[in-house]
Amino acid sequence: MELSDTDRKNINKRITPREEDYSEWYLDIVSAAGLAENAAVRGCMIIKPYGYALWEGVQKALDAKIKETGVENAYFPLFIPERFLKKEESHVEGFSPEVAVVTHAGGKKLEEPLVIRPTSETVMYDAFANWIQSYRDLPLLINQWANVVRWEKRPRLFLRTTEFLWQEGHTVHERAEEADARARQMLVVYQDIAEKLLAIPVIPGRKSESEKFAGAVTTYTIEAMMQDGKALQFATSHNLGQNFAKAFDVSFLGRDGEKHFGNQTSWGLSTRVIGGLIMTHSDDKGLVLPPAIAPIQAVIITIGKEEDRETVETAANAISASLSARGIRTKVDASDKRPGEKFYEWERKGVPVRIELGPKDVAAGTAIVVRRDTGEKETVSIDALGETVANLSDSIQTDLYAKALAYQKEKTVEVSDWDSFKNEIERGNFVIASFLEDKEVEGKIKEETAATVRCIPFALEQTPGTCVFSGKATNTRGVFAKSY
Amino acid sequence: MELSDTDRKNINKRITPREEDYSEWYLDIVSAAGLAENAAVRGCMIIKPYGYALWEGVQKALDAKIKETGVENAYFPLFIPERFLKKEESHVEGFSPEVAVVTHAGGKKLEEPLVIRPTSETVMYDAFANWIQSYRDLPLLINQWANVVRWEKRPRLFLRTTEFLWQEGHTVHERAEEADARARQMLVVYQDIAEKLLAIPVIPGRKSESEKFAGAVTTYTIEAMMQDGKALQFATSHNLGQNFAKAFDVSFLGRDGEKHFGNQTSWGLSTRVIGGLIMTHSDDKGLVLPPAIAPIQAVIITIGKEEDRETVETAANAISASLSARGIRTKVDASDKRPGEKFYEWERKGVPVRIELGPKDVAAGTAIVVRRDTGEKETVSIDALGETVANLSDSIQTDLYAKALAYQKEKTVEVSDWDSFKNEIERGNFVIASFLEDKEVEGKIKEETAATVRCIPFALEQTPGTCVFSGKATNTRGVFAKSY
Repeated sequence: MELSDTDRKNINKRITPREEDYSEWYLDIVSAAGLAENAAVRGCMIIKPYGYALWEGVQKALDAKIKETGVENAYFPLFIPERFLKKEESHVEGFSPEVAVVTHAGGKKLEEPLVIRPTSETVMYDAFANWIQSYRDLPLLINQWANVVRWEKRPRLFLRTTEFLWQEGHTVHERAEEADARARQMLVVYQDIAEKLLAIPVIPGRKSESEKFAGAVTTYTIEAMMQDGKALQFATSHNLGQNFAKAFDVSFLGRDGEKHFGNQTSWGLSTRVIGGLIMTHSDDKGLVLPPAIAPIQAVIITIGKEEDRETVETAANAISASLSARGIRTKVDASDKRPGEKFYEWERKGVPVRIELGPKDVAAGTAIVVRRDTGEKETVSIDALGETVANLSDSIQTDLYAKALAYQKEKTVEVSDWDSFKNEIERGNFVIASFLEDKEVEGKIKEETAATVRCIPFALEQTPGTCVFSGKATNTRGVFAKSY
Repeated sequence: MELSDTDRKNINKRITPREEDYSEWYLDIVSAAGLAENAAVRGCMIIKPYGYALWEGVQKALDAKIKETGVENAYFPLFIPERFLKKEESHVEGFSPEVAVVTHAGGKKLEEPLVIRPTSETVMYDAFANWIQSYRDLPLLINQWANVVRWEKRPRLFLRTTEFLWQEGHTVHERAEEADARARQMLVVYQDIAEKLLAIPVIPGRKSESEKFAGAVTTYTIEAMMQDGKALQFATSHNLGQNFAKAFDVSFLGRDGEKHFGNQTSWGLSTRVIGGLIMTHSDDKGLVLPPAIAPIQAVIITIGKEEDRETVETAANAISASLSARGIRTKVDASDKRPGEKFYEWERKGVPVRIELGPKDVAAGTAIVVRRDTGEKETVSIDALGETVANLSDSIQTDLYAKALAYQKEKTVEVSDWDSFKNEIERGNFVIASFLEDKEVEGKIKEETAATVRCIPFALEQTPGTCVFSGKATNTRGVFAKSY
């Protein structure tokens, strides 16, 4: 990951402090760290190598976990015949306004327009209907890594882009309970990626009826709190029941010799999680990365005059080799820029550990080690660097998660009256409240506060109460917030 | 990889023998092995899990090799503004007839139609122009894994599909020689994938002027011979010179303080190589896979009556665990189908080694081991299975390559007169001949024989001769064949 001149130009641009303008701060971080940029087509993005390396890290970890649960990868077409999309009523309603349509191809007008997949339920289930004949073909457990397109009116790099990358899992089961269990199981897989890999604490729960996926029976979600108190929907997992199965005739001959419809799930995680990663940990100096996902976990920066170059570079390369042998992803920056400039650049790119090495250090057999998250410095014997960096990496990973969790707890309040609700949302908090699970009520809450119910958390006791907005009796308690 | 009922249905369908109809044989293998199927949109395909596992194997090996050469992955948008495609004249000529165009999105007609990438030179180089300022930003070495769309009139699963998956590498260099060296370097990487991973011998060379990529200075290619004697272009690597650099202003401030245009390359390998893999090794009984790419390298098939099930299954699982521990990808088929049926199914799926295990074998501490490629059987002590399967895998890999290479050599002939040329092409051979590198001459050769010059092989001495078609003097010798 060499720095290009453009990187350097971006890097020298001031990062807007969070306090001043959180949205600008986010875009400045994306630019300063060289993660992504806007493409020529509005709403589309170019994921630059450093940003793509983060996505590859997510892919690698998640793909392995998905396969461990018995799911196999496959690939379905980008193009969906328009009539497919129309087969499941609420699905077409949900996606029609967002789709891109191919009308011409191969120099001719097409007889039937083709929709570019906004998600692949319809095209997959048309095939599944042929693949599945009897209960012996179940469960069918399929995943694909793909690009999808949803026309985006207010695009924002990673968080909302017209084209994005994701995985979408789709399963078919004999029994309804199996489908529900699978949807829940995949949510746990996503939670693991969020919390263990990306150090992002999340709140697992179910979406309210009006917030669920177009065509689902139940949508499960994990929700994360960003530093401005807004929620980011990290990933969702849907129990589709038999809605699509009936529309696409995904049916099977059961053990009883009768025809039954399949019970289905779908679940997805997209490049938007990279936006969540950026917004959870970064600070006014730039990106902050948890070591588990960092493409470079330790950068070794050489210091000194030209005459010492060879000595220092040799020592730096030896350190790099020894750290690499321990499985630590390292990079030597032996460029001839001033040390301060190098520190500054790698700080902006969020590398968790910086090792500073000059001729005096080499002579003394030591190096200076600096944590990106806290700025703490210590002098360490070169021989002990491997262990130090490994331990520091563990600490940084744990501390970043703990810090984010403490922040989330601190900024989550429970209210029982409407004024408090409005105030707490205005303050940028997550607000727990009893509410009537009803499209109209939720719509009015959103109208007045811009907040939506993010989820009905599994961990939240569902006790009888009074709807914070309508005053009506209810048994539902949820967490509300503004969101990305 | 459980077999679904549909798999079983396909599997029970007769495979057309190669002698009878090679094209049908190919499609029968794809279907019988459960690799892929046609999608609802004509020309598009669904890559089924077993077929996708082959592509994942190629991806994993190739991605590692690409990265070893210093290239980084990134991701560029699916959509290309129509005006971009028009910037490089021969490029737009080459691709215009094949593109799919989005005219409507988000419920509105677009102001400018968007082309779905048929390849990404234009959209990438528009960005590269901004990324590159000075010679210090070079070389720029980028790769992406993506789907591309080229409207296909005569689609064929894997070999020619409207949407296909590939990687496309794009590099920019300071000097012309560096670009040429990079284009050649990547061809060697592709050759390695073909020969070592897929056991497909290839002929590396350059394309003739009229066969080169739209916009390239030189196109390098590796060409493989299929069992019907037709050629498959396995992968290509282009030295683009400054053609695109000038069209997109990919320029840099040189060491001399002057503005220079970049020297570029692009290179790609697609899912069509899976078609090549199928056609190189498979036989009338089904797919044959080299162990290095086989998703399952050894299948353990249990035999016996219900009362022996537990004993045999326990032994089979123990064998599987011990083979897995050696890094051998294994699968136990303990289903209650008849042994013959199980043999037949896994034969069709091309698993390199079959291990048969019944109660008598378990009692004797032995198992029967069968090679998929030759059908050879041997009885092996269970304790020695690990070593036997590892050795067999090596042998099968080597033998498949050797067999394909011998076939290629046997079916490659050199001619000096036009009648022989026509006869040898008609016989399904690769034909080496002197020819005039000229669009008209090559066009007429193609018209009369359907053969094209596949490449001017690096290994073929370029000596003065007489053009096999025009009788004119020439210094060029190439290899001709009909092709996929």
